[in-house]
Amino acid sequence: MTTRLAELTRGGRVESVHAGTIAVAHVDGTLLASAGDPATFAYFRSSAKPFQAIPLIESGAADRFGFTPAELALCCASHNGAPGHQSQVLAMLAKLGLDSSALQCGLVLPGDEHEAARVIDGAIAASPLQCDCSGKHTGMLATCLHLGYPLDSYLEPEHPLQRQIRDIVGEMCRVPAGSLTLATDGCSVPTFGTTIANFAFAFAALAAPSAAPVGAGREHTAALDRLREAMMRHPENVAGEGEFVTNVMAAGNGHIVAKSGAEGLVCAGLPERGIGIAIRIADGTYRALPVALAETLRQLELVEPAVIDAIEAYHDPRIFNHNRRHVGDFRAAFQLERAA
Amino acid sequence: MTTRLAELTRGGRVESVHAGTIAVAHVDGTLLASAGDPATFAYFRSSAKPFQAIPLIESGAADRFGFTPAELALCCASHNGAPGHQSQVLAMLAKLGLDSSALQCGLVLPGDEHEAARVIDGAIAASPLQCDCSGKHTGMLATCLHLGYPLDSYLEPEHPLQRQIRDIVGEMCRVPAGSLTLATDGCSVPTFGTTIANFAFAFAALAAPSAAPVGAGREHTAALDRLREAMMRHPENVAGEGEFVTNVMAAGNGHIVAKSGAEGLVCAGLPERGIGIAIRIADGTYRALPVALAETLRQLELVEPAVIDAIEAYHDPRIFNHNRRHVGDFRAAFQLERAA
Repeated sequence: MTTRLAELTRGGRVESVHAGTIAVAHVDGTLLASAGDPATFAYFRSSAKPFQAIPLIESGAADRFGFTPAELALCCASHNGAPGHQSQVLAMLAKLGLDSSALQCGLVLPGDEHEAARVIDGAIAASPLQCDCSGKHTGMLATCLHLGYPLDSYLEPEHPLQRQIRDIVGEMCRVPAGSLTLATDGCSVPTFGTTIANFAFAFAALAAPSAAPVGAGREHTAALDRLREAMMRHPENVAGEGEFVTNVMAAGNGHIVAKSGAEGLVCAGLPERGIGIAIRIADGTYRALPVALAETLRQLELVEPAVIDAIEAYHDPRIFNHNRRHVGDFRAAFQLERAA
Repeated sequence: MTTRLAELTRGGRVESVHAGTIAVAHVDGTLLASAGDPATFAYFRSSAKPFQAIPLIESGAADRFGFTPAELALCCASHNGAPGHQSQVLAMLAKLGLDSSALQCGLVLPGDEHEAARVIDGAIAASPLQCDCSGKHTGMLATCLHLGYPLDSYLEPEHPLQRQIRDIVGEMCRVPAGSLTLATDGCSVPTFGTTIANFAFAFAALAAPSAAPVGAGREHTAALDRLREAMMRHPENVAGEGEFVTNVMAAGNGHIVAKSGAEGLVCAGLPERGIGIAIRIADGTYRALPVALAETLRQLELVEPAVIDAIEAYHDPRIFNHNRRHVGDFRAAFQLERAA
């Protein structure tokens, strides 16, 4: 089902390996290339966030509450809980007449190490604003408030917003919503299980929704265009300084949209090409994703070499030890199979 | 070469998997059981520390400098840099007439989250005392000082102490020292590559050296007995509060010695049974090691069930999300093959 995607070397030998699956799809419905079986099952986790935000746009809630592009990017984010992210989410909640007590995403240490240090040493209190999903939850609260849906039960799979999101995720992934495996995400909203190939199709449609077939994203063109542009213009709000997808979008400079997902997933879309990419590391880790994405873009010649160079400048494939000695390397270990 | 050792579930389905290798060996030279190919290559990394400390004992340096059992445990440790570990290492250096400037292990954030937070927020300076290997390096410095070896070059593979350690590691692993693959460890000393089975033999000899064949650990019985007892009596100094091998030794209550190694390795020894166990996760991660070790002990009925229960009490195989909802489970996914 999976195949070796990347290796770590030390002393000239392979020390560790990461297996996984890659799927590259065109918005027209063609699977272009893959490594491992593109029918491998996975959960969409936070890579679904741009699609979970569609009702926020289409309901009119985003306009009613005056959410800016930077704020929409936060609604699609797994942000690292830096102070700037928290203050923006708090400002969004204020637009709703709410505060952080309305967030049901739970508590988790922020990815930003300085902010995490302040929580650990007691300088500041833990807050759901710090949770990487606080922007998504705020977007959901805005939608519920605008549509008159209950606010207290917005996590539940049978809440009207969650049912609507499930239908949308099915559409974007080109599978019946009823076929999605439902599970509980880290932040307690439903997450959706299907195949890696289906994630690639969803991101192809995020990249170029007007080229998507009816029933597979085209009806959501306006919302997807707005969310995608917000993410690409504010990549620092989609993850954070030094974070992988923020760097990928900065390197892509308007030519790549990207979103990570828990347990080793990254999905990307190339708007001009109408192409979606999904890469998942089967062991749930992230460290091999930069070389896997760079290698995918290189093998298929999907972007200018300068973009790949920029990704590798952000994420050095060399491994240095505590004394900054170069002791090994990350390297890609796959050859994409192109569909006939 | 490797096989699936553990799975993580979510929503009733497998979300992530960890492949790896397990070898269980008897000190008499018999391979008892395995999962995956026990000839799989790996580096010994920090699981070699008890053997890297043998010259400290056998040279007389430990006695000359009055190292206590708690301090010897630190010489075999990947400690988490808690303040108590740092102060003990500093006291050991003082016994040598040295201070932290003699340590060449480099700088790395301590594993102890409170201490790491203090470094990140600038409350305290980064120090090589915080490095998980600072005790090992102090033991090496003590040995060099006692034997009149140069102190400034103790990291180098051709330094007389490192050559001596290489010979010892070869003996313990039951391979010619010249066949060990040399690489540079995180703390810049040499590390040694051979097979998972050979690590299991080394830990069988650590567990019961007097039962080991000549040339495979028996000559080092006095040193190994002293180091093993120090580790088992002071498990908090071998890793730290909440850390895996500390908890395994606490659960084992004198019946298990255990030491982790970088990139997903744990090795354990059962003194009364003369058995060594090596488990390595091929992707270099640690989260599956508790279920893999507990399942190995269970399948081979190597310890009382209460010991396994205690390991699982320390390392709950259930997965909880940010809201403490039970969303999935870690579970073992292997059946050990017993040697004929």
